[in-house]
Amino acid sequence: MTRSLERQTVAIVGLGLMGGSLALALRDKVSSITGVDPDQDSLEDAFKGGIIHRGTTDLREGVQDADTVILAAPVRIILEMLHNRLGSYLRSNTLLLDLGSTKAEICEEMGNLPIGIQAMGGHPMCGKEQSGLQAAEATLYRGRPFVLCPPRRATPAARIRALELVDAIGAVPIEMDAIRHDRLVAGISHLPYLLSASLVNTISAEGQIDPTIWELAAGGFRDTSRLAGSSVRMMTDIISTNRTAIMRLLALYRVQLAILEASLVAQDNTQLEALLQAAHDSREAWAEQHLR
Amino acid sequence: MTRSLERQTVAIVGLGLMGGSLALALRDKVSSITGVDPDQDSLEDAFKGGIIHRGTTDLREGVQDADTVILAAPVRIILEMLHNRLGSYLRSNTLLLDLGSTKAEICEEMGNLPIGIQAMGGHPMCGKEQSGLQAAEATLYRGRPFVLCPPRRATPAARIRALELVDAIGAVPIEMDAIRHDRLVAGISHLPYLLSASLVNTISAEGQIDPTIWELAAGGFRDTSRLAGSSVRMMTDIISTNRTAIMRLLALYRVQLAILEASLVAQDNTQLEALLQAAHDSREAWAEQHLR
Repeated sequence: MTRSLERQTVAIVGLGLMGGSLALALRDKVSSITGVDPDQDSLEDAFKGGIIHRGTTDLREGVQDADTVILAAPVRIILEMLHNRLGSYLRSNTLLLDLGSTKAEICEEMGNLPIGIQAMGGHPMCGKEQSGLQAAEATLYRGRPFVLCPPRRATPAARIRALELVDAIGAVPIEMDAIRHDRLVAGISHLPYLLSASLVNTISAEGQIDPTIWELAAGGFRDTSRLAGSSVRMMTDIISTNRTAIMRLLALYRVQLAILEASLVAQDNTQLEALLQAAHDSREAWAEQHLR
Repeated sequence: MTRSLERQTVAIVGLGLMGGSLALALRDKVSSITGVDPDQDSLEDAFKGGIIHRGTTDLREGVQDADTVILAAPVRIILEMLHNRLGSYLRSNTLLLDLGSTKAEICEEMGNLPIGIQAMGGHPMCGKEQSGLQAAEATLYRGRPFVLCPPRRATPAARIRALELVDAIGAVPIEMDAIRHDRLVAGISHLPYLLSASLVNTISAEGQIDPTIWELAAGGFRDTSRLAGSSVRMMTDIISTNRTAIMRLLALYRVQLAILEASLVAQDNTQLEALLQAAHDSREAWAEQHLR
């Protein structure tokens, strides 16, 4: 029998932006929150800030008595924890949810956990430009999609408990299989990042010839290049665990870019304008529905 | 002999964001401002708002008595005005400055104006997401680079008077030839726009297969796709008048994207991380210097 959420001990592994915000969103809705982080300073900051009830640098100690364990670490760290001994540290019937940005490899590892652990892959579609505990806020998840991806052998109980948790932080659950998730985020997250990084590397090369290019860059470059400033460690983890979906998207993107270029080369302004209008209308329709 | 700026009549052709902001920035620094716009409502709004001293829909009437004429219209309109009768409407010694986003074709046309007209190509590196007179603000140009491109036969007087005008609105002049300008903005403005439009067209195609992709799109997609929402008419003008420079940049960009992709295909995470780190560091160095 599972305790109701308000009587549960929740362990959050990783007290960065996502883990810290989750602790803030949950702290009045659960019995206690244990923070697990390799950084003693982060633990002390979180404890002093009333974000967690207790903290430890020891994974086993942090998770062994928890009713719910949430992995809020970079993808490779989550994979390592799952692959190594995490499963043996958990009590039977523990809900194990992760917040990793790619899901296929993580859900695959979750499928190998001992029977009795209620595992569910998760990916909240939110974030902000700043990272770290200092940037955490209780409302980060509110109203945002929270993808849930069941690993093989996922139980109805795991699903119900994950939904309850998503609901508690005000997010909107969307259930789908991990492969589908990874294909979708390759398009709306990983492809934009790679375009942004490639743009910056192109301008860097141009800047070797004529450094004034950096002086002229304005708002358009600022926005299109912003993702290139993301955490490289985090993004390398994400991209290297979603290779197939990203390579597919890159191929499709090259086609779209080539179609635009063809109209430019041919001086076909009617075709060029039609392609740009299609992009304009799609972008405005999305913004109208999702940015207001 | 040229009147000092505060005794001049300035005609601004085109009362959108750029022209309206210029009028606001100049109105206390010149004798009078005449607005020229095909839209009677814009003229009335500008007059009632105290942005211009008088307005007309007639180009000849608006510019014939001006000491300085500023063309704040889309690139194709500027080209048409220069190609048609604008030169014959102007008094000798009139300073003619434009704000068009590409400069080679415009400066070429300026070179054909009657002797005695003091022509100078201009491109202020600023803007905002909103367009139109309602979005105009007096501080839009302040502290921003303002590129000046002399056409052939440009006189020292044209240069001095253009610099005085740029100074009056608080912008930072950067002089360069038109071909160099067009090569630089192809990188920091036109390439980002085409990437953004191609990204949106890629996601649109994916959305035909799985519309949920639009639901998951978050901040990364929002920023990278923002430029795709730019005015299509304006951008078609800009891109079609800077074909060579853009095609060159697209070729260089494809190389950068292919280098990233190669490391992904080869599962060479060390190389992938190095490439992403280079982009990260360049972007952060630019942001550090230009966004604070």
